[in-house]
Amino acid sequence: MKFQIAAIAALVTFSAPTLAQQFKPADQIKYRQSAMQVLQRNAGILNAMAKGDVPYNKETATASAELINLLAKQVGTGFAPGSESGAPTRADMKVWSDASGFKAVNDKFIAASAKLAAANGDLNGIKAALGDLGQSCKGCHDDYRLREARN
Amino acid sequence: MKFQIAAIAALVTFSAPTLAQQFKPADQIKYRQSAMQVLQRNAGILNAMAKGDVPYNKETATASAELINLLAKQVGTGFAPGSESGAPTRADMKVWSDASGFKAVNDKFIAASAKLAAANGDLNGIKAALGDLGQSCKGCHDDYRLREARN
Repeated sequence: MKFQIAAIAALVTFSAPTLAQQFKPADQIKYRQSAMQVLQRNAGILNAMAKGDVPYNKETATASAELINLLAKQVGTGFAPGSESGAPTRADMKVWSDASGFKAVNDKFIAASAKLAAANGDLNGIKAALGDLGQSCKGCHDDYRLREARN
Repeated sequence: MKFQIAAIAALVTFSAPTLAQQFKPADQIKYRQSAMQVLQRNAGILNAMAKGDVPYNKETATASAELINLLAKQVGTGFAPGSESGAPTRADMKVWSDASGFKAVNDKFIAASAKLAAANGDLNGIKAALGDLGQSCKGCHDDYRLREARN
């Protein structure tokens, strides 16, 4: 019985692997770095509107907030076990050795991004949410991002 | 009067520059390459579900389709005039010399991505939309992407 379950489990794993298993470590690293760039661009757009450096545009603001929220919920998949190395990366090994701590800061990021998306493009709502978002970015970067890339 | 209007226009431009003016060419190139990576990842997730290579998950599928749609509408801003060079890029100069042709293939991409998002995570709807999406990717890459990066 125990053997049967293990055999079925192995079969299921083989025929329907998880998404994380589909990606090579170097592709995971490239994906998460790219996601960070897109996040940075969109946070930059919202910050520029909040400061009045560019004209406020509701449609653009809504799209950027939504993109940040969707990517915040996805980017963690790029740090799945097995993607610790394989290309130059600034991810601290603490991401994997302190997985529960990393999950906690990622959850804060997701919560802040949800608040941003919930503003539905309203500039005051966005301004109120950007503080939390910036804090959650900084919180993770301070503790889980290296100053220099490692191999 | 003519001088006054020009002076006001200059002032407006100074105090409220467009978003495209905020970004250095190298940052534009980095952004659009990153957006393409995120697009590729999410199209890969949907293709894998469509082929049964990974288990179908409605929430994941909806998020990927929505991300593709939002990025399809945004990635064109990364090709704004002034971002022709500044870092290694595979963008053909035709992107700028044939701006109306590039806009037409970009519009096809946006339309295909909208169809994908409109499926609301339904697997059959996604399967139906993925063909158009793939064609629109290929159409642009065939005509506006170089085989090798240029400086």
